[in-house]
This record gives sequence, structure tokens and C-alpha cells, in this order.
Amino acid sequence: MQAVVYEGPFNIVVKEKPKPVIIDECDAILKVQLAGICGSDLHMYRGHQETTTGHIMGHEFIGTVEEIGTAVRRFSIGQKVMSIFSPMWKLAATELIGHSMKCWFCEHGYTNRCVNGPSFGSMALDGGQSEYVRVPYAESTLEAIPDEVSDERMIIMCDIFPTGYYGAMKALMKLKLGKETAESIVGDILHTPSALRPSFRQQPLSQVVVVCLGCGPVGVCAVLTAKVLGAGTVYAVDSVEDRLEEARKMGALPLNLKTDDVLATVKSATDGRGADAVVESVGNQSALRLAFDVVRACGAISSIGFHQSELPFSGFEAYSKNIDLNMGRAAVRPVFGEALKVFAENQDKFADFITHRMPLAEAPKAYEIFEKHQARKVILKL
Amino acid sequence: MQAVVYEGPFNIVVKEKPKPVIIDECDAILKVQLAGICGSDLHMYRGHQETTTGHIMGHEFIGTVEEIGTAVRRFSIGQKVMSIFSPMWKLAATELIGHSMKCWFCEHGYTNRCVNGPSFGSMALDGGQSEYVRVPYAESTLEAIPDEVSDERMIIMCDIFPTGYYGAMKALMKLKLGKETAESIVGDILHTPSALRPSFRQQPLSQVVVVCLGCGPVGVCAVLTAKVLGAGTVYAVDSVEDRLEEARKMGALPLNLKTDDVLATVKSATDGRGADAVVESVGNQSALRLAFDVVRACGAISSIGFHQSELPFSGFEAYSKNIDLNMGRAAVRPVFGEALKVFAENQDKFADFITHRMPLAEAPKAYEIFEKHQARKVILKL
Repeated sequence: MQAVVYEGPFNIVVKEKPKPVIIDECDAILKVQLAGICGSDLHMYRGHQETTTGHIMGHEFIGTVEEIGTAVRRFSIGQKVMSIFSPMWKLAATELIGHSMKCWFCEHGYTNRCVNGPSFGSMALDGGQSEYVRVPYAESTLEAIPDEVSDERMIIMCDIFPTGYYGAMKALMKLKLGKETAESIVGDILHTPSALRPSFRQQPLSQVVVVCLGCGPVGVCAVLTAKVLGAGTVYAVDSVEDRLEEARKMGALPLNLKTDDVLATVKSATDGRGADAVVESVGNQSALRLAFDVVRACGAISSIGFHQSELPFSGFEAYSKNIDLNMGRAAVRPVFGEALKVFAENQDKFADFITHRMPLAEAPKAYEIFEKHQARKVILKL
Repeated sequence: MQAVVYEGPFNIVVKEKPKPVIIDECDAILKVQLAGICGSDLHMYRGHQETTTGHIMGHEFIGTVEEIGTAVRRFSIGQKVMSIFSPMWKLAATELIGHSMKCWFCEHGYTNRCVNGPSFGSMALDGGQSEYVRVPYAESTLEAIPDEVSDERMIIMCDIFPTGYYGAMKALMKLKLGKETAESIVGDILHTPSALRPSFRQQPLSQVVVVCLGCGPVGVCAVLTAKVLGAGTVYAVDSVEDRLEEARKMGALPLNLKTDDVLATVKSATDGRGADAVVESVGNQSALRLAFDVVRACGAISSIGFHQSELPFSGFEAYSKNIDLNMGRAAVRPVFGEALKVFAENQDKFADFITHRMPLAEAPKAYEIFEKHQARKVILKL
């Protein structure tokens, strides 16, 4: 079969690879119809990620079920499905077949840290930019395509939207639950007389100021989520005008890094305090430093960008600002249902989201234009 | 009056200083009866904290109200009171007198980041290791002494216990609320059909493993709090045997850094995962690094130690472990009521907590033995 293979930085090749086969009873083989190129593929493309070469790229894909392992009951041959960007062990099937593989993290909703959950399109697991792909743990990794969303748009649900959703949700959750008492842990166990509970103002979500750093595909999904979940004001920061325009459509006030003073604008809108929460989806030190500078004391930073360097603030700074920081890959499975609902209800905002549709054979060109910000979102059609 | 004055690293002097006077209508002057030396005073004593010299030390003190400003109604002359370690602007009095001073942070419960809340005993505000002390914003900074707790033990409520309480509470709150859906933010606003909400196991608090790094006074208070709030297993880590014995009394399993393999023990108790939450009260890089190493992926680090260096883990490490990190000074006011209740109910565990009682004149000696871990807790008596 034809597949998009990583052969080194800026070196993507379309070549013949063996068609995958079922190797575990929980596997499915998909015949791929659409495969997206994701911003996180660029870390590898640009040579910023330690990896071997020779694997098939891509963790966003939609296709039809070609073959299933004996433990797969949720999907049937010929069914159209999409895949979440990394497989997960938490399976109905594990119970059906008495499988001994159990992942504590998946069982508890931390599917982002599945002990056996490599991303598709990495040296650990071939991806979906190819005619066929093997999907491990198919029952929990695949999802049916809902009637109300087109196949093309569902590519956005493979990674981008749930990741942006998770990033914004984590940030707002930290604020909402910032109420500094044990009531939320133990309820009334302590039987603290209410006279002992001082009354502080609860900041309503409608007054909350969120800053989304980065308006790539994930960033604008974070913007939309923050708005839908109720954040009053959402600033979106980038240096690419086209991206800022997308963010504006999602409900953000756009700020261009090249021409606007982000820090001064946000401080001025918050009586000098800074943003209540920041969602950082860029994945470099200057973005995370700006997140730190723009957030108010006791505010929340939700960082979903892929960071590979030192942290750009000191322990003293973090202590002095009482920072509440969350970092890392999104847990997609727990939020998938509600994220899909929000996405489906707002899908008209994504009408122009996919700007380029190219055949698999043109993948090298597709990576090139995406890397140069000449395309907002590229999908490969098979 | 006689006062304990900071004149430089390892240079504490008892000398004559002017008796403080009311300078604002919200002030109170206390005649001090007891003043504690706190672990955080040692940062300055050891020269680890940037500061000028010449100020009066101490942020733990109890005394009687000697004089009050015209806006102070909650307390009356002659009343015995204790002080929280830093003053706060959120005052009943501000409304009474139409004062223009308002602190957004205090109003919203982030009293740890009061815009005008320096700690007592710093270059910004004279402390209470002296015959008299001026207390700004007395209505929110002071508390009456409850009948059921002795004056001496209430010294522990000035900083140590509420800080340990806050640290443990923040850690457990992050776990309890780690449920990765927006339900907690918007409730049923999204009207997500329950079929879309996957069911994950909720880890009951009784199965939660907490590691408290540092068994100084604040650390053992964190241990007690974690146990009272319901954490199933609490490990306490230190290298001083006497401190570990205190932690054991509070309900912890003690681990000696010198003789125990902390990482191996905790991993072995958690099927290799690591602790669900870590409360770090030491305030140096090696402790925070151990916190990072010992916590499980997607776990919580609540750091209340005073950090003055770089963070001892990289952005890549934090991303890869999906760390949820909270740092900084405790917000005492919001938790004071419930912390006092827990403290009062468990005060017999603190029977041997204060090991040394010395006259003010012997403050230099008191600092010396406390710094050398020859005393668990020293109070100065006037």
C-alpha cells in the first residue's frame, strides 16, 4: 500500500509499505479515506522531536472498518469510523475476553497517560496517512461518525477539537474550583459552622478573562470552548493574521504579537491584575513565559503545547505568583462526548477551517505548505 | 520597648526600639505575650532571603489589645487575640468607614496575594517578637482566642497549622476534582446525554496515597490534615528522626531520607505509579525534584515551601508527566475557620509540639538552637 513515511527532518516520502494485519484480538484494520496533518506533526517534521525514521505519519484519520479482531464487538466491517489520536487500553473488550491488560490511568480517566498509549504516527506506532492502518484497542480508540457532522469535519475531532476543549476546560475548572476550602473535598464531614466560613466573592464565569496563546487549530478550538463554557472575555494571541481572524470568529478579541502590547492590553482590561486563566497551545518557551507574565496571581495556566525545553520561569517566580499550572497532553476520551456535542453545535464556525484537500501522493507538498503557514488545515484524501 | 531585630545572617539582636503607635484607623496595637519562631524565619536568618536589616522579626504572636484605631469594632481593649501571619485588606471596617482601599484578591479569597499584604517580621512590616506590635487591618488580621485552645497552642494557628492545612487541602482538591469533564464548570448547561459521558473509576480518598515532603512544623500539620480529610495513606519524608516521630503521631508512615528509598517504597505501594499527591513544605530544589519524581503521572504537587531557585524539572518532563502543580504562600483567611476546628479537635497530638519556652532576651540563642534542629518549636515569652 502507499503510505506517508518520515525519513528525517523536512523529508517526507510517499512510498510502498506492507498492508497492516490484525496482530491482537482487540485490533481493527481501517481502510483510510481522509487523513489530516496536525500541528503536532510539525514538531517531528521540523526535527524538534527525538525519533527514529521509517514510520508512517499521521494521527488524524477516518475510514471504514476493513477487518476486526475477535474481541471487537462495538464496530462491524464496512462501518465508517474515526480514530482518537492515541489508542487506549480501557476496553469493554478486556472484560469480554478476560484480558489481563489493565491500565490504571485509563480506568481512572487519565487516558492521556495510558501506560501503553503511544500516539499514532510515531516511532512506536504507524499512523493513518496511508491506505490502511492498524488500530489497537479498537473499541476504545475508534468512534462512529455521527449523522450530523460531515466526514471531513470529523477529522477535527480526532485531536484538535478535544485537545483545545480539554485545555480550556482545565483552565476554567481550576478557577471555578479555586474556592479555597475543604468543602469541595469532604463536603460537610467537618461540620464546620457556617459562621466559620468567611464569605468571599465568587468570580462569575461571565467576568472571567481568559487568554489563549496560539491561534493554530488547537488554539481556536480552545477559544470556542472557553466561550461556550461561559468565559466572559477571551483574548486570542498570535502573529498570523489569518489565524487571528479565525479566533475572532470563534468569539475572541484578537491580539497580534507583532503590533499589539498583549501584556498591557490584558492588564488594562483587568485593573492591572492580569488574566484569570491562560490556555497555552504553542509549545515553546516564549509562549509559556508570556502565559506566566499575563496571568494574574493565583491564576491558572493550562498548557497543552508540547514543551521540550526548560521551564521559562523560576521557582521563586512561581511561588511569588501562587501559580496553578497544568501541563501535558489532553485526555481525550473523558471529554470526547461533550466536546463532540459542542463541536457539532458550532460546526458552522469551522466551515472554512480545512483550506486544502490534497491526494496522498502530494503529502510532501502538503507538509511543506502547512509548515510555512500557507494552509490553515490540510487533509489528505484517498 | 525591647524587640528582636534582624541585623544580618545569623545576627539576631535584642535591642530597644520605639513603641509602635496607631497610624491608620484600621490599626490595632497589641501588647505581646507569646511570640513563635517559625521555620520560614530561618530563610532570612540563614541569609537565603534578600532583605534589608533593622526590622523586628516574627509573624507568630499572641497578645492583648492595647489600643485600637477608630475603625476597629470587632475587638476591644484588653481582649486577648492572635494574629494571622500577614495583614489583609478585606475588612468589615472598609465598609464601615467607606475606605477606598479594596483588594480584589482578598475579596475573592486569594488573601495570600493581598496587594498590600506583607508578612509581619519583614523589611516591609515590623513583626511581633517584641513587647508591642502594630497590626494593620486588625479586623481581618486578628482572631479571638477560643476557650478550648490554650494561648501557647494558638501560636500554631498563626501560620503553621493553616499553612499545612492549605497545602494538603490544595493537593487533595486537585485529585478530587481531577474528573476531566466540564460538568464541574457548567453543570448541566451542556445537557450532554449521560450516554456520552464515559464512566471512569473515581479513586476514593481512602485509596489515595499522599507524600508529605518535609516534617517540620508545617509538614506535620499537612500530614494531620491529609489524614483528617480522608487520605488513605500518608507517607512523611524527612531526615530528622524526631520530626519523623512527630509525623508518625499525626498518622503518617515515616520515611527517613538517609536510610529509606523513598521512591522505591512509594512506587512499590502504588503498583509502580507513584503517589497521587505530594505536599512539599521544604522549599528547596531537591525536595521539589523528589516531589516531581515521586508523584504519579497526572498527579498533584502542592508546594508550600518558599522557593528561591530555578524549578528542578523541565518543560518536557512536566508535559510528559501531565503535572498539576500549585505553588506559593497559603491563603490562610479562607481556611482559618475549618483549620481551627480540625486543630482544636486534634490538639492533644500537639502536646509536645512546643519544646522550648524562652524569654525574649534569649532570642539569639533561641534562633540558634532552632536553626540547628535542636528544638522542634521555640516560643518567646514576655
